[in-house]
Amino acid sequence: MSVDAVGTERRGRRARKAIRQARDITMLPSLHRRIPLTELMDGAQVERIDAASMRILEDVGVVFRDEIALEDWRRAGADVRGETVHLDRGLVRELIATIPAQYTIHARNPDKSLPFGGDRSIFVPMTGAPYLRDLDDVRRAPTLDDLANFHKLSHMLPALHSSAHHIVEPMDHPISHRHLRITYSSMRHSDKTFMGMTTSPKNAEDVMEMCAILFGEDFLEDHAVCTGNCNGNSPLVWDETMLGAMRAFARRKQPVLCSPFVLGGANTPASVAPTVAQLNAEALSALAYTQVVRKGAPAIYGHYLSTVSMKSGAPMAGTPEISLMNYMIGQMARYYGVPWRSSNTLGGAKTFDAQAGYESATTLMSVLHAGCNYVWHSAGWNEAGMHCSVAKFVVDAEQCAMGYRMAEGVRWDDFDEALTAVKDIGPGGHYLGHPHTLENFQRAFFMPELFDNNAIEQWAAEGSVEITERALAYAKALLKDYEQPMLDPGVDEALLDYIARREREIPAAEALNQDH
Amino acid sequence: MSVDAVGTERRGRRARKAIRQARDITMLPSLHRRIPLTELMDGAQVERIDAASMRILEDVGVVFRDEIALEDWRRAGADVRGETVHLDRGLVRELIATIPAQYTIHARNPDKSLPFGGDRSIFVPMTGAPYLRDLDDVRRAPTLDDLANFHKLSHMLPALHSSAHHIVEPMDHPISHRHLRITYSSMRHSDKTFMGMTTSPKNAEDVMEMCAILFGEDFLEDHAVCTGNCNGNSPLVWDETMLGAMRAFARRKQPVLCSPFVLGGANTPASVAPTVAQLNAEALSALAYTQVVRKGAPAIYGHYLSTVSMKSGAPMAGTPEISLMNYMIGQMARYYGVPWRSSNTLGGAKTFDAQAGYESATTLMSVLHAGCNYVWHSAGWNEAGMHCSVAKFVVDAEQCAMGYRMAEGVRWDDFDEALTAVKDIGPGGHYLGHPHTLENFQRAFFMPELFDNNAIEQWAAEGSVEITERALAYAKALLKDYEQPMLDPGVDEALLDYIARREREIPAAEALNQDH
Repeated sequence: MSVDAVGTERRGRRARKAIRQARDITMLPSLHRRIPLTELMDGAQVERIDAASMRILEDVGVVFRDEIALEDWRRAGADVRGETVHLDRGLVRELIATIPAQYTIHARNPDKSLPFGGDRSIFVPMTGAPYLRDLDDVRRAPTLDDLANFHKLSHMLPALHSSAHHIVEPMDHPISHRHLRITYSSMRHSDKTFMGMTTSPKNAEDVMEMCAILFGEDFLEDHAVCTGNCNGNSPLVWDETMLGAMRAFARRKQPVLCSPFVLGGANTPASVAPTVAQLNAEALSALAYTQVVRKGAPAIYGHYLSTVSMKSGAPMAGTPEISLMNYMIGQMARYYGVPWRSSNTLGGAKTFDAQAGYESATTLMSVLHAGCNYVWHSAGWNEAGMHCSVAKFVVDAEQCAMGYRMAEGVRWDDFDEALTAVKDIGPGGHYLGHPHTLENFQRAFFMPELFDNNAIEQWAAEGSVEITERALAYAKALLKDYEQPMLDPGVDEALLDYIARREREIPAAEALNQDH
Repeated sequence: MSVDAVGTERRGRRARKAIRQARDITMLPSLHRRIPLTELMDGAQVERIDAASMRILEDVGVVFRDEIALEDWRRAGADVRGETVHLDRGLVRELIATIPAQYTIHARNPDKSLPFGGDRSIFVPMTGAPYLRDLDDVRRAPTLDDLANFHKLSHMLPALHSSAHHIVEPMDHPISHRHLRITYSSMRHSDKTFMGMTTSPKNAEDVMEMCAILFGEDFLEDHAVCTGNCNGNSPLVWDETMLGAMRAFARRKQPVLCSPFVLGGANTPASVAPTVAQLNAEALSALAYTQVVRKGAPAIYGHYLSTVSMKSGAPMAGTPEISLMNYMIGQMARYYGVPWRSSNTLGGAKTFDAQAGYESATTLMSVLHAGCNYVWHSAGWNEAGMHCSVAKFVVDAEQCAMGYRMAEGVRWDDFDEALTAVKDIGPGGHYLGHPHTLENFQRAFFMPELFDNNAIEQWAAEGSVEITERALAYAKALLKDYEQPMLDPGVDEALLDYIARREREIPAAEALNQDH
């Protein structure tokens, strides 16, 4: 080895060590996508879906199982027959026209507020799991402390833009009080954006009150601070719980995800394009309703997408038709000028095995290429949403960081400089010691923390650790370093006072959660 | 449950049972892609890469470490200085213009011949692994019987279009005789297309002789029947072994994959676009050389792509920059009108864990969206190519089938009929019993065999089987059902005679394999 090569190698080792030691928990800004999107449909096909959806809304109609909503629709001029609302396409178009296409979702730490919609995307962790796989990969019922750990991890993982809400269900607290504790945990343990519970209209009102305490009542009027999800019952039904929660959010001008719940083949036709037409009709009906409740309220075109196995009846994830539907739905949302939500990293594996990896990565790639704005369920989802896995949570978050980098596209600013390096190095040379390499290698190529790419001998010498164990060690190390973000003590006290009062007022048991 | 619902459920169960029992090993035709591709670059950026590559070829030059090639280049009018060949852009363009853009790769079973290039893609299993993880997931040295098993699986897995060649190295045979045994195994155990060994010029000649026996000498002259890979030594070097093998294939008009071997950041600049410019120059230099050897010989724009971790020095797969480079390289290959090869399902995991799943699925999605024609290393690759895993082989092949379905795009022929179903079913209904569903469900939504989507209770009752075990059981079942495809006894005897003669002629030891 030449003296020069030794020096290069020494510099390389020092640089590598410095990278290993740094842990940057700075949140990545709202992703500004710069890759072209996968658009399957030409203009005529987009219009064919649109026309089919409008025909469904006019001829078949949508059931709103809620007296207030039916009354609202009558007042808005819809043709209401029993519980079925027939919506004229002119009325639908007029209503959805007032949904804002782009806005900012505000965090309590202004540095973590997120430009949203258009070519912006954000990653939001999974929510709603009745079980977790914990820091020792044991599957069990979650507690409020477990939930707090997920909120802490969300706070620290750079590609996650939100702490969401009930990532896992805190089973050690009464159902009727949970929404208060969940909301407080999201607010307390992270200063990123979060989601609000929509498990009942009253629960949604409580979330809005707590947001008013955290941000100030007036602030909410002009700023989105809390997103809430409302699922439809496909085909073509919205129920009372979801509609009441939707009103609570829309009245306060907080963004509602209007999410038909698709089990493709079971509650939709057994075909991709017609499923999109039905889902589109369902989403439009709820998006339109948010504007009946309050003109100009932000709203998000949503859906939960799975296909059903005709062998077993089980919902499936990571299948080709889900990718295709995502591409088409993205086009429809952009056609209407409404930001849209999809689901990331879904899967049906029972453990964090290779199945989970394939399903999650396929879905991540498809939603990024589809141009999804609100990339929900971006970390932790496994077992069809029945559990959130700590190991998968941190790996998924790193995958989001990798997808983020991909979707940012290619830099050209160093192109000419780097070509000089090609000339400097010449045929048969190596680049590791070249000044351009030394200046750029940290940001040039993504280096995943949680993938092991070492030779098998080194891997064996380090204990033959597979990804689950590696990820759990990583999560433990993160939690050890966690520091609670500052929260104004007066605000904190007011939140706790509100919770204490509501816990006195609310009886001990209510309906089960339905959030997905 | 109503009488009608009972009937529907019974029909559903019968249909599900029928699906479970059928195992269709019919090969999928060469994929006809119908999704739009991800093209990152505008026309000016494509021309910027082209101009940079041409400047590299003119000013820096490419080293051809081979006397015959240097003499060929002198005769072709290139500026040869020592071992360095400086290629004028006019000469390069003139030479590559005669590479066919589209043709058929012929299999010995004409039903399995593959239209290739343009919007056609084919999936080819991995090759070159010095180890395998076997039918019991034990990592060990492979034998010729192990290789035969992979050829049998390739024959039976519908989305694999080739049996490739040395999927694993048959370590129980002398290195110098292996290429004969490998080629015979590919030819014997499968009637799909295959690849030819390029481990030395003489070995490549043996493969060509065996192809002439299998297909007839005259047939080769006008038909591509065997692809061979030649790796470059980036930056900007082609060595004697590869160039000699390249000549053996090109002279017989058999397609050569011209594959720069990129360890991004180590043997290229630490930046995406300049790496593509260098790789493009390297690929063009070899593509041009195939036409010096024989005008009109088919050739394939190739590469092996990884990025190097600056933390550990290890090559990485499934990283965002590899996706970006694939998108750009696809555009360049289409700009030159040459079919192109990329690598699928690469990864550095040591076992078939979630890391392997993420890496493989990310890469599969990126090469499909990049519009790759020759999707090599599509099954089995793990541990940076150091082993081929039986479990991963069958799962990857199913993933290819899923990617295939996605890349076919969306059908519209049943759109109006399915919309009638939406009207028939109405709000709140279910589709499982509807005639459109019963007619279409088998092909509507892909149902993976190797993903388990059942509830955890059922999964536990069935033994809590993770994907590796499931996949190995599947591989064993396939091999049990394997039937050797008919091979003309006269041809078979001629092949065996050729091998016997060559084994008498060839001494016992030669150079190691270099194929990737």
